[in-house]
Amino acid sequence: MTESSKPILYSYFRSSCSWRVRIALALKSIDYETIPVNLIKDQGQQFSEEFQALNPMKQVPTLKIDGITISQSLAIIEFLEETRPTPRLLPKDPKKRAQVRMISDTIASGIQPLQNLSVLKQVGQENQLAWAQKVIHTGFDALEQILRSTAGKYCVGDEVSMADLCLVPQVANAERFKVDLTPYPTISRINKTLLALEAFQVSHPCRQPDTPPELRA
Amino acid sequence: MTESSKPILYSYFRSSCSWRVRIALALKSIDYETIPVNLIKDQGQQFSEEFQALNPMKQVPTLKIDGITISQSLAIIEFLEETRPTPRLLPKDPKKRAQVRMISDTIASGIQPLQNLSVLKQVGQENQLAWAQKVIHTGFDALEQILRSTAGKYCVGDEVSMADLCLVPQVANAERFKVDLTPYPTISRINKTLLALEAFQVSHPCRQPDTPPELRA
Repeated sequence: MTESSKPILYSYFRSSCSWRVRIALALKSIDYETIPVNLIKDQGQQFSEEFQALNPMKQVPTLKIDGITISQSLAIIEFLEETRPTPRLLPKDPKKRAQVRMISDTIASGIQPLQNLSVLKQVGQENQLAWAQKVIHTGFDALEQILRSTAGKYCVGDEVSMADLCLVPQVANAERFKVDLTPYPTISRINKTLLALEAFQVSHPCRQPDTPPELRA
Repeated sequence: MTESSKPILYSYFRSSCSWRVRIALALKSIDYETIPVNLIKDQGQQFSEEFQALNPMKQVPTLKIDGITISQSLAIIEFLEETRPTPRLLPKDPKKRAQVRMISDTIASGIQPLQNLSVLKQVGQENQLAWAQKVIHTGFDALEQILRSTAGKYCVGDEVSMADLCLVPQVANAERFKVDLTPYPTISRINKTLLALEAFQVSHPCRQPDTPPELRA
């Protein structure tokens, strides 16, 4: 691969959706360049004209790869899965694939969007913590119940899947919002097992090019 | 197919996520039974113990099919696509598939969750309309720009895809919240073209078993 064809990931170290994609890239050993988009600095670099042209939704992640530009983390991961199938992030069996996508979408449509930065801004500073906690509790109550019937070592059986790529960043958000995880033993157990894997460690928010020095680990 | 193996869709006539799945079922000529879940009546039938056991997120749609129960509309549609591939709802080319999923997720993760019933309840009655309008405007500003580069007759090229199944119900929500669609000629044009198709008509909220008489058409 020539230098110019290296994929470019527009990412923010703390963005849970960016982290999902970083894990996929790491698991599939895809070499890429990071261009940080700081969602706080300069009143939000995602609002720059240059970035809006790449992603009109003004969100990270966005991936330039194979001559196209893709936004939306799950769309990116599905594209990586179809074009770089090894190791696979979706099981072979359609019913298991459905479980993986159901869990992924529960997080990506049912939890994360309701506690992301732009919503919390609208909710107002004094209500942010309670709002985020409520959203995550409602989602995790459901997720814990779903995982009890789908999980093995990981979210669905014993293979790492797209669902796991969604789970770990969402648990990190829960911790940031001080959500008590005691009622969620299955979520907590899977999260801990996944965090021991190298792909989850190299992609971690505390180890990105744009991680501020005081948050590095 | 025996009677007992007919798929069962838990649906609410007005739910835009249920409508997405109803269009997929219609396009693929899958015969199914509807069990209505009234999100308003009885303080919300989705909160019943019986329904929570099927879908811990307490949302519609949920589909019972092939011996499994799937929630999350896009996970359901992907399962239908993998098990009943004709007519296809995802293009063959991985880059076009990525565009379809990007548009679908923009709606399913970026717009709809922020204006659904449970969020609007939390926002409070006096703020609901302004909140929903803002969310949809932000999303449609982006969507219009994306579609300008992907659309043919439909959202991506000239074949109906999963993206179209997300677009039409979201436009219906926009109309319900009195969003001015003048700034979105591409969205409006595609929506109108799709609404002329039979699968979009038979699945329409005004023609469901649980549509109240005064809203039938």
